[in-house]
Amino acid sequence: MDDQREALLALSLLCEPGNRLVSAELTRRDAVDTLQWLLAGRDDPAGAVARERLAGRAPADLVAETLETAHTCRARPITPLDDEWPSQVADLAELFDETDRYTGPPLCLWVRGRANLAEVVARSVAMVGARTCTAYGRYAATELAYGLADRDWTVLSGGAYGIDAASHRGALAAGGPTVCVLAGGIDHVYPSAHDQLFEQVTETGLLISEWPPGASPRRYRFLVRNRVIAALSLGTVVVEAGLRSGARYTARMAAELDRPVMVVPGPITSPASAGVHQLARGPAPVRLVTRAAEIIEDLGPVGPDPAPAPSPPSRPRDRLSPDAARILDSVPRRSAALPDRIAAQAGVPVEEARRILPGLAGERLVEDLDGRYRLTTEVTPA
Amino acid sequence: MDDQREALLALSLLCEPGNRLVSAELTRRDAVDTLQWLLAGRDDPAGAVARERLAGRAPADLVAETLETAHTCRARPITPLDDEWPSQVADLAELFDETDRYTGPPLCLWVRGRANLAEVVARSVAMVGARTCTAYGRYAATELAYGLADRDWTVLSGGAYGIDAASHRGALAAGGPTVCVLAGGIDHVYPSAHDQLFEQVTETGLLISEWPPGASPRRYRFLVRNRVIAALSLGTVVVEAGLRSGARYTARMAAELDRPVMVVPGPITSPASAGVHQLARGPAPVRLVTRAAEIIEDLGPVGPDPAPAPSPPSRPRDRLSPDAARILDSVPRRSAALPDRIAAQAGVPVEEARRILPGLAGERLVEDLDGRYRLTTEVTPA
Repeated sequence: MDDQREALLALSLLCEPGNRLVSAELTRRDAVDTLQWLLAGRDDPAGAVARERLAGRAPADLVAETLETAHTCRARPITPLDDEWPSQVADLAELFDETDRYTGPPLCLWVRGRANLAEVVARSVAMVGARTCTAYGRYAATELAYGLADRDWTVLSGGAYGIDAASHRGALAAGGPTVCVLAGGIDHVYPSAHDQLFEQVTETGLLISEWPPGASPRRYRFLVRNRVIAALSLGTVVVEAGLRSGARYTARMAAELDRPVMVVPGPITSPASAGVHQLARGPAPVRLVTRAAEIIEDLGPVGPDPAPAPSPPSRPRDRLSPDAARILDSVPRRSAALPDRIAAQAGVPVEEARRILPGLAGERLVEDLDGRYRLTTEVTPA
Repeated sequence: MDDQREALLALSLLCEPGNRLVSAELTRRDAVDTLQWLLAGRDDPAGAVARERLAGRAPADLVAETLETAHTCRARPITPLDDEWPSQVADLAELFDETDRYTGPPLCLWVRGRANLAEVVARSVAMVGARTCTAYGRYAATELAYGLADRDWTVLSGGAYGIDAASHRGALAAGGPTVCVLAGGIDHVYPSAHDQLFEQVTETGLLISEWPPGASPRRYRFLVRNRVIAALSLGTVVVEAGLRSGARYTARMAAELDRPVMVVPGPITSPASAGVHQLARGPAPVRLVTRAAEIIEDLGPVGPDPAPAPSPPSRPRDRLSPDAARILDSVPRRSAALPDRIAAQAGVPVEEARRILPGLAGERLVEDLDGRYRLTTEVTPA
């Protein structure tokens, strides 16, 4: 095999994602040489796994077979040699975890969906949390994801029950793309109850997996997968997490990758928020967030590429009271919302919102569409 | 007048508490000289207020009259010249607030109750929050204050409706002393619905006021009073606060006095927690707390004077799971509690608590009193 991309695909199939031995080798040789090195009759676990997976086939045949399977489930592989590759995952090369050898950068990401991988995750935030969430957690995840998607941020999560699903659904409700990083092949709908959700995700966003079609999700793969969620996004928000939740592992990864970690507070009486509150107490720096605007603020500037976040003209805004400013921050940009929803997002009493919104409409900061409000559409100069 | 203590009392009666002009003068002269300086026919607001309050009487007569009134309402004055004086309020001398001239140290504190002022506040924590709190806030304040009092910490608050009252009541329920800092004379029960609560406070703790008996609580006095709450305590916990709550002013004072500021998280959907969450986002460093043990941890060591916090023997404790350690931290020291209450404090599911507590009893870390648990009584060597 002398094609570098094909060799990368073969390597990604012959070793478990995150394998540091292989990623270290790839810093010293190219993919073709690394594949030869891996298959040179090595007497170590990496060699044994590779031989077992080949099962006597040539690497090129394994790649061809997998691409065929991928084709039937509409998945395509993206490697570091492709334009769509999200270069930020290279940060994982610096992530050393004594207790886990599977923290290296991915060699290939299998994706399914209409979005361009690099573009859709360029302005993305991970929202993670417990499977066994409360109604409060589900509401908070939905609202925050809605607000993020409404402001053109991609919500990235793991597709699991609970907080993950609520985050994807909130983003979809705002018409935004959302990205779901799976811990098994894209053909494996896990949990199966989410088949419709996953279909919706592919319409504007992406399903992503490091594992090729056919690979089944396994317990340890969820933890390995979490590092990709942390690395693809610009920051991670933990919505609800018990004291032992895997979401805290994702948060730890994000912190080690120098990406902001944010938590959504909850009642101190709720075990579903206990892990979140413990995270907030350190040792890694953690920001508390209550609204989409705060998450965006904490993510900081996102580089020269993405469009600057839309903001209303600065003059009238400066005169606003703190409540009015919070309400303005909570008015959706695309689909108009009722004052109650805006008040809940802003953390301001409903009566205040009902009093303030008409004033904001008077100053042309928001539009009143039959009692629902959205930000005034900006006129972009041609 | 040539008695320094009497002169301090006269000064405290002739100017509004916190007056920086007078406290600055007191750093240059003694109290007798400062009184003369104040009464030397000064053509400024301080002189005018003093003359108005004297109303032709001699300073000694004003002091004598006030002491008589104080006697009838069982209040006694404590000055910096008395043993009971809490020296930590001197930190207020360093507190300069451009917008408020009333931030100087108190010259006199009127107290009513059985406790010794300096002793009862030596290990004290302020718990403050909104008058219009929610049931959640009331519950959180009560539980945290209970846990603090149970661990021999004095809970200090302002006696108002809502979070203040819940904090005092939680401390009283645990049999601990609590201190209530009022914004008017000790004879003014404000709010009047709290007369029974204030009576209970005096049985083990103290009512405190900078204003002499007879002074009525006024709106601006609440803010002036808040600096004393911040200065007397080792740290301030804000339980619930709207975006405009005065509790946030107390927290700001505490931060400026280099005392830890802690906040109790709540649902992001609750306007009563919006001010708390905003505080947690800075700019001053703020710690998030969910249990009494965390508050005590954040207050740090309290100097050589107070007894070290009781802790179970270290060997068996080190072997505990995180859940078991949290449960052990939440078992009361004095009055035994049911597993549900302990679970709620620990943020651990009730079933877990029911499973873990008998094990802790087996290791003699806790005592099982007919299904209620408390920490094992330590045998103090004689």
